[in-house]
Amino acid sequence: MSEQIKGYTYGKVGQSPVSIADLDLLKKTVLFTADDEKNLKLAGEVLQDQTNEVLDLWYGFVGGNEHLLKYFAKNGQPNMDYLTAVKARFGQWIMDICNKPYDQTWLNYQHEIALRHHSAKKNKTDNVDTEKIINYRYIVAFIFPITATIKGFLAKKGHDAETVEAMYASWFKAVTLTVILWTYPYIIKNEF
Amino acid sequence: MSEQIKGYTYGKVGQSPVSIADLDLLKKTVLFTADDEKNLKLAGEVLQDQTNEVLDLWYGFVGGNEHLLKYFAKNGQPNMDYLTAVKARFGQWIMDICNKPYDQTWLNYQHEIALRHHSAKKNKTDNVDTEKIINYRYIVAFIFPITATIKGFLAKKGHDAETVEAMYASWFKAVTLTVILWTYPYIIKNEF
Repeated sequence: MSEQIKGYTYGKVGQSPVSIADLDLLKKTVLFTADDEKNLKLAGEVLQDQTNEVLDLWYGFVGGNEHLLKYFAKNGQPNMDYLTAVKARFGQWIMDICNKPYDQTWLNYQHEIALRHHSAKKNKTDNVDTEKIINYRYIVAFIFPITATIKGFLAKKGHDAETVEAMYASWFKAVTLTVILWTYPYIIKNEF
Repeated sequence: MSEQIKGYTYGKVGQSPVSIADLDLLKKTVLFTADDEKNLKLAGEVLQDQTNEVLDLWYGFVGGNEHLLKYFAKNGQPNMDYLTAVKARFGQWIMDICNKPYDQTWLNYQHEIALRHHSAKKNKTDNVDTEKIINYRYIVAFIFPITATIKGFLAKKGHDAETVEAMYASWFKAVTLTVILWTYPYIIKNEF
């Protein structure tokens, strides 16, 4: 399935400037352990047939906020093809954050996603003409909506409250980790 | 009381480069409303006599992690005076994030805190000689521990689960907002 997603080039991108050793220390800082890997695997099963609903919610939020929709637009005109392409890849990201090992290949692909938000590579994957960069501040701000809104979906498959909380905490850690990696290109040299 | 905290200069610092209009859009992005202000006021009451315990937990975490403690150290030797001074101001930050209006004065002080993490002003307030900068990645990573660990403290004053959840969500939004403001100096010009 993944291979049919336009622009999804997992395993076929350049090297991340962040090392596995750096990632290990970041994991320690967000208290990420083997238990989180298990919780995310379970979350992946729970979310698998709900990704469209999750994406509808997230993109409804973007679409309802002019200051966010503008990143998919030019002169106030949203590019629907671009929105559709990004949405498909974002769906795959939900699966990847739950199921993929956080190894060098994963690290490399998070950096590719980072470059696609930044002026370095924005618009290039889909060959579109929209805003040149997604401003840094909204990438970090998205930690909240992307985390808070997932809980309802995690609770939909009859798991007890404790299990839902465990999946939710692991998701929060995973989102925080990826947002750090996605903001690398915005950071002044040697300050990351 | 605040006036006795060394280096706490709320209301006496320079202008933030982030405008109130920018802050309003960030608030929209983390779904921050007047309800969150109310929840944070309540959280402030709940946390008021627990700040020392909260800080002991957070600084215990820092102290137990060499890669974090190093920012308070030189040549592997932690500076205890520096740790103590920062801890007192962090306690006041807990109260401020709950009780202060998020106005221009608040915005300015978040920027002052940002500069004190960055090489621009690190070590200067306390006139110490430790690491020259706190690396960007750990400031964002701290969103997780600073958020997740607060819930237990919010639950300690007998509020029902729904009220605790409401305070917790507002805290999460507030921490995300402030972390964005604290990272401003690390971001490449015009990309914030």
